Amino acid sequence: MKQQLSIIKIGGNVINNQEHLDAFLKDFEALDTLKILVHGGGRKATEMADSIGLEPKMIGGRRVTDEANLEVVVMIYAGLLNKSIVAKLQSLGCNALGLTGADANVITAHKRIVKEIDYGFAGDIDKVDAKTIRVLIQQGIVPVFSAITHDKKGQLLNTNADTIASELAKGLSKDFEVELIYCFEKNGVLEDIDDDDSVIEKINSKRYQNLKNEGIIAEGMLPKMENCFDALHNGVQKVIIGQPDLIGNRTLKHSTLIL
Amino acid sequence: MKQQLSIIKIGGNVINNQEHLDAFLKDFEALDTLKILVHGGGRKATEMADSIGLEPKMIGGRRVTDEANLEVVVMIYAGLLNKSIVAKLQSLGCNALGLTGADANVITAHKRIVKEIDYGFAGDIDKVDAKTIRVLIQQGIVPVFSAITHDKKGQLLNTNADTIASELAKGLSKDFEVELIYCFEKNGVLEDIDDDDSVIEKINSKRYQNLKNEGIIAEGMLPKMENCFDALHNGVQKVIIGQPDLIGNRTLKHSTLIL
Repeated sequence: MKQQLSIIKIGGNVINNQEHLDAFLKDFEALDTLKILVHGGGRKATEMADSIGLEPKMIGGRRVTDEANLEVVVMIYAGLLNKSIVAKLQSLGCNALGLTGADANVITAHKRIVKEIDYGFAGDIDKVDAKTIRVLIQQGIVPVFSAITHDKKGQLLNTNADTIASELAKGLSKDFEVELIYCFEKNGVLEDIDDDDSVIEKINSKRYQNLKNEGIIAEGMLPKMENCFDALHNGVQKVIIGQPDLIGNRTLKHSTLIL
Repeated sequence: MKQQLSIIKIGGNVINNQEHLDAFLKDFEALDTLKILVHGGGRKATEMADSIGLEPKMIGGRRVTDEANLEVVVMIYAGLLNKSIVAKLQSLGCNALGLTGADANVITAHKRIVKEIDYGFAGDIDKVDAKTIRVLIQQGIVPVFSAITHDKKGQLLNTNADTIASELAKGLSKDFEVELIYCFEKNGVLEDIDDDDSVIEKINSKRYQNLKNEGIIAEGMLPKMENCFDALHNGVQKVIIGQPDLIGNRTLKHSTLIL
């Protein structure tokens, strides 16, 4: 039987608040499965860009990563945030090791191809090296990924953390029974976006299609859901969407996605 | 017979110049022994501190690491510099993995005890986890250390890169035949500081004592030499001091330190 592996992604809503982050990391440490943490960026990169006088470059609501902004996200994501999380987890007795995709070449990507929009140094993932990650995990190491990858030609790339989590989940699902958990600011996928209690508890492919057709799942939730179903179609057992508190208390409301 | 392991430390003189750094990394990749790279900081951290309006805090010519400056060095050393070096090495076919002491708890330290001077978040090393580093090396991984450690209580610490190199060398000398190489701006230990050709080729403990007594080795070289002889007294086979070009061409002038 395959061992269970939990891959958990947290974003700005956890990272921006030291108290929330500490509480989450305590819950994460207490998880008794094998585990991987993937963290997004949060406010700090924008603050840093501001304080060195960089203008945020946005096209169609999406951040464009020019060279100067890439330097900032590498500093903040792979440096300050990643190492602070690793040090905190180590203090809790969790044997964390921080990684970007460049480290041991675990995630290779390519610079997003320019169609209508040039996103700059944004990475689209080509390959996850499941073997190396498995070896680390089997040494008792808990990988902590920042949202930076590389192209194996020397270029670091800013990469969507949700996608890193789903690609890791897919890549590791041959070796492990993978549970992928997306933590965000809501209790799950909501029937009514203004009612945090309207969590849709189970969503399968058919239900997802209907929710999409009805416009209940829309905008920012769409790419997240696409990542989830992509993972499910590629060997991942289960995807969960909910609040970060869910990691410490699985009785809290959340959405479970299955095929 | 033990396998040979080269531990190479580079500092600002290599890091501050992209062309030099690229040339060095090419030579480093071509080394056919097992290897570890340790890199210091360089100019970038000072530039970043300047550009966000931090005053450098110096006491007795040494930088004092307050909380804001610690954030900067973590960003730059463990983030930007470390990951840029790792990505470049990966592009050259060297399976680099970037580490701080916090990652997998490989180097624990304590905040330097305040005597006359409070150095702030400066770390003095307590322990190197040779076993974990050995496991990584035996997986074909090339560890690349930035000069950041932690205290295992959640605190990251700014740590002298020369000392990290010598502590790694000591810790790994039970498992490997370790050669420790310090690359800096001169051709080696100089008889006459103004004459770059006056390299002292062999220095043993006795010669070192004499050179110290005569004032030929003084000031900044003293802590470097102390690190070297500390390593030699603790199992390291050989310590070499010279220019970074030495890595690609061992016939260049350099100093070899032995017991």
